[in-house]
Amino acid sequence: MPVTRGRRADARRNVTAILDAAVECLSRDPDASVADIAQAAGIGRVTLYGHFASRGELLDAVFSRAMRHADAALDDLDIEGDPRQAMTALIRSSWRIVSQSRALLTAAQRGLPHGRVRELHEEPLRRIERLIERGREQGTFRADVPVPWLVATFFSVLHTAADEITAGRLDEAAAPHAITGTLLAAFTPPGQPVPAPE
Amino acid sequence: MPVTRGRRADARRNVTAILDAAVECLSRDPDASVADIAQAAGIGRVTLYGHFASRGELLDAVFSRAMRHADAALDDLDIEGDPRQAMTALIRSSWRIVSQSRALLTAAQRGLPHGRVRELHEEPLRRIERLIERGREQGTFRADVPVPWLVATFFSVLHTAADEITAGRLDEAAAPHAITGTLLAAFTPPGQPVPAPE
Repeated sequence: MPVTRGRRADARRNVTAILDAAVECLSRDPDASVADIAQAAGIGRVTLYGHFASRGELLDAVFSRAMRHADAALDDLDIEGDPRQAMTALIRSSWRIVSQSRALLTAAQRGLPHGRVRELHEEPLRRIERLIERGREQGTFRADVPVPWLVATFFSVLHTAADEITAGRLDEAAAPHAITGTLLAAFTPPGQPVPAPE
Repeated sequence: MPVTRGRRADARRNVTAILDAAVECLSRDPDASVADIAQAAGIGRVTLYGHFASRGELLDAVFSRAMRHADAALDDLDIEGDPRQAMTALIRSSWRIVSQSRALLTAAQRGLPHGRVRELHEEPLRRIERLIERGREQGTFRADVPVPWLVATFFSVLHTAADEITAGRLDEAAAPHAITGTLLAAFTPPGQPVPAPE
């Protein structure tokens, strides 16, 4: 029994070391190989493949963990009070996370099946959904289009900004204003003035 | 010489038959294989690989041709006159094309490198860019964010709608209103009222 417990603890340590090394390698180079990651984790490739059957499986695990961390970080944000102010705060905090993980995001988009990155955002997107619903009830956000569409718009605008920066078409410094301005406008009910982002 | 000319004409006919068969197969099933496409084109797989070295190369050619056709179709659209009305017309016509080619788009997103689908849109996006610039000069569209960002938003909202329909999160009938409403709002200058899409 102590042997098994020891082995399990070893396995857990290995998995953590692999995931940490993967984040480090993929943040430097979104195309980093399994061999690069195993080396950075200080383990053999065979050991790595014992935990993750393929590069895709490893990428999926890395990105899932990153999303859990992001979701936990956003938990600390106060999004009660005025829906538009709360949305501005949520956009900024979400963008800070997306922007810091841009290389990792590129790795996930290149290495995971189309649509999987969006799937892995289900949990953090629930927070956006709740805030949109509250803002609609109060007349702050538009109610003439479906809630899931506004959630999709939120996701899409943030990830488009990341792609545009990576492609060299958007200046990183201009991104926060562009993102906030676009989303606040997109959420405004027809007939109401577009708010100027601070 | 006549032999060579005859062979060249054969090759052209083969390429056209392959591209036509690819559109047909991929529209039915975005994961259609090279073997499926060769069979539908009535040629052997070896002949197909003589023209396109890989499924990716074939997909790229199929999608490039589709973009040229789309661009030619949009050429007929009158986008002079009131910039907001012209934008509404351009959004509708563009969406009609994207929506009709949704399966082909899915095939391209799954089979081409991340970012390539956007790259292949450069030509049709120039038309959007010119209209945005004209609308900014006339004060109809917002000038506090860069033009390429508004172009990226246009691309992103249309393709998000296609993805959302494919994922079963957006009703196809609700898409035109959602897309037009979101883009017209996103382009409105701060302080001006969000237009109600007709």
